[in-house]
Amino acid sequence: MLYLDHAATTPVRPEVIEAMRPYLTGVFGNPSSHHTVGEAAAEALEWARGRVAAALGMRANDVVFTSGGTEANNLAVKGIVLGALAAGAAPRGLVTTPIEHESILESADYLHRLHGTPVTLLPVDAHGRVSPDALDDALADDTALFSIGHANNEVGTVQDVASLIAVARGRGVPVHVDAVQSAGWLPLDDLGADAVSIAGHKLGTPKGIGALGVRSRVPLEPLLHGGGQERGRRSGTENVAGAMGLATALDLAETERVEHAAAVAEMTAEFITAVLNTVPQASLTGSPEHRLPNLASFTFAGTSGEAVLLELERRGVVSSSGSACAAGSDEPSPVLLALGIPAATAQTSVRFTFGRMPLPAGSATQLASLVAAAVAAVL
Amino acid sequence: MLYLDHAATTPVRPEVIEAMRPYLTGVFGNPSSHHTVGEAAAEALEWARGRVAAALGMRANDVVFTSGGTEANNLAVKGIVLGALAAGAAPRGLVTTPIEHESILESADYLHRLHGTPVTLLPVDAHGRVSPDALDDALADDTALFSIGHANNEVGTVQDVASLIAVARGRGVPVHVDAVQSAGWLPLDDLGADAVSIAGHKLGTPKGIGALGVRSRVPLEPLLHGGGQERGRRSGTENVAGAMGLATALDLAETERVEHAAAVAEMTAEFITAVLNTVPQASLTGSPEHRLPNLASFTFAGTSGEAVLLELERRGVVSSSGSACAAGSDEPSPVLLALGIPAATAQTSVRFTFGRMPLPAGSATQLASLVAAAVAAVL
Repeated sequence: MLYLDHAATTPVRPEVIEAMRPYLTGVFGNPSSHHTVGEAAAEALEWARGRVAAALGMRANDVVFTSGGTEANNLAVKGIVLGALAAGAAPRGLVTTPIEHESILESADYLHRLHGTPVTLLPVDAHGRVSPDALDDALADDTALFSIGHANNEVGTVQDVASLIAVARGRGVPVHVDAVQSAGWLPLDDLGADAVSIAGHKLGTPKGIGALGVRSRVPLEPLLHGGGQERGRRSGTENVAGAMGLATALDLAETERVEHAAAVAEMTAEFITAVLNTVPQASLTGSPEHRLPNLASFTFAGTSGEAVLLELERRGVVSSSGSACAAGSDEPSPVLLALGIPAATAQTSVRFTFGRMPLPAGSATQLASLVAAAVAAVL
Repeated sequence: MLYLDHAATTPVRPEVIEAMRPYLTGVFGNPSSHHTVGEAAAEALEWARGRVAAALGMRANDVVFTSGGTEANNLAVKGIVLGALAAGAAPRGLVTTPIEHESILESADYLHRLHGTPVTLLPVDAHGRVSPDALDDALADDTALFSIGHANNEVGTVQDVASLIAVARGRGVPVHVDAVQSAGWLPLDDLGADAVSIAGHKLGTPKGIGALGVRSRVPLEPLLHGGGQERGRRSGTENVAGAMGLATALDLAETERVEHAAAVAEMTAEFITAVLNTVPQASLTGSPEHRLPNLASFTFAGTSGEAVLLELERRGVVSSSGSACAAGSDEPSPVLLALGIPAATAQTSVRFTFGRMPLPAGSATQLASLVAAAVAAVL
């Protein structure tokens, strides 16, 4: 079986489990306990915090460990908007895009429903890119936050975050970057955002750990209230083993990014070209130039995406229609609709996401012929 | 070293790690993915859900996996009150007690600050018990939730939840029981509450997993919005390994509760008697009759609690002043103050919490003499 759904989740790495092992066995203390058993756990947690901070180009005290990417995104969006609300008076606005992950859009909906937060969704072009000018137009004096995905999870489009952040900064608006899909594939240490979300299980940790890096100067209303852990920004006994795993996975991914990301990008490009050449119904979704190195996404007009996936799985290739979070939904993907793709075509989407090591030479062509066979079987 | 801080956290159990292992290694799928890799993970998750439901006396669909006890408590308090708010109109009230865990009280504070929720704190007696009559008086027509800790984490007092639930039920008010400290020590399958919180790491899982059992008929506003996992009540990729660990830990704890809890209770009682007999400054906190089988909590008037803890640690005994979540705070414990203990005395508190297996015969007396020596060294 060839697993090509690494954007949904990726196998747990043995090195990550090794780094977690002491904290799954002997070093079991509660890092908040003021005794030797607790202190050993606290030391590990702070080591991990420093490593994650380095990967995000932030200070150790900026890192808030969370249970995953969804919690990190919820904390960023709700925490910063409600933090501004608590500091000021009138409802403060949120600017984002229609192609964000559900954890951003549903958090925006929550703020709108319960707090009357004005939410602006920026237009995106046919490739899923946001223009700095559109952002500049949308930002208002009462904008509390601009939240943008670094790379889209369904079509892999990478935003020009440097320009977008520059625009927002010029207007004094804090920026949150959802880097859940880009972490390990694009450098994050020079983003310059005020808040950055990552999820461990996309990088080879077990599920249940993530982080939000959020600069200390940004007022943040916690999502989880309680004992005041994580400098009062995320209560709850800290997941020490998970934090160690996340730090280790980020370090490994950074080494591999430098060594292998270009080769993976080349293989993905070869695969995209081969599919477009051999499958007449195929159309690439997202940006041809600005995309994640490991993500190839298509529509196959005239087929059913679900049927193509099944035919691929029968041929030993595991892929997906798009976001696992939305898998099984009968609705066409809102991301594809926002890119101007008609609903009927959007329902024929298939996403292939490769792992961190390039496949052997010739795999891209071989894989494209399996795709052609699967599509032919459906037609 | 004798670790007597099991209420803060307890060693991870080898059987739990074994149950988690497949989901930390080979079975890595995202349970929301619609392919064989995802389905294997989804099956494990549903098995675990069924086991946790059985332990809580609920249906499988009532179980929402969380990142721990703090998230479960936040989801219960905010989720049910905001769920009622969304269903109705005016702010709806919360009734709880002043001796709850910070995750309850700080969630209440959040609701009050951001939503104007009226919060009523019921009086507790000198043992930390709430009377059903006081509850009956406090409940109002617009009460959205009554939240009560099954057993207090600092003094071990066990509430008469059956009577309290009967009163609330008679008034049509949903009841949330925080069973984070009682899980594994008291049966939960016959509680009859509308919502029950538990935390894995108090039962021998790694940190980062917990659950809220909440009956499906109770309107619940999610805390984490996004992809709609957990039947829309808690978004985020599910922590499959953690769920397996929690289910396994609950099963083990139940077997041990039946076999050993009485012996642990006897040992704890022996220890309490020995301390009271040998340390003139010692005073038991909490209820002499209604207490957790494994928790002995004292004040040692005229000492400093922190100094006693250090002297105990020098003698090889690791204990705590109370809640790990509040460890290091210079303030006297709000729980002890609510029990009418003067601030100066409250600052001399020491809590011993035993593990699931009784210590060898004679340990209680031996331990009491170490306590006497530690207190004498401080005086």
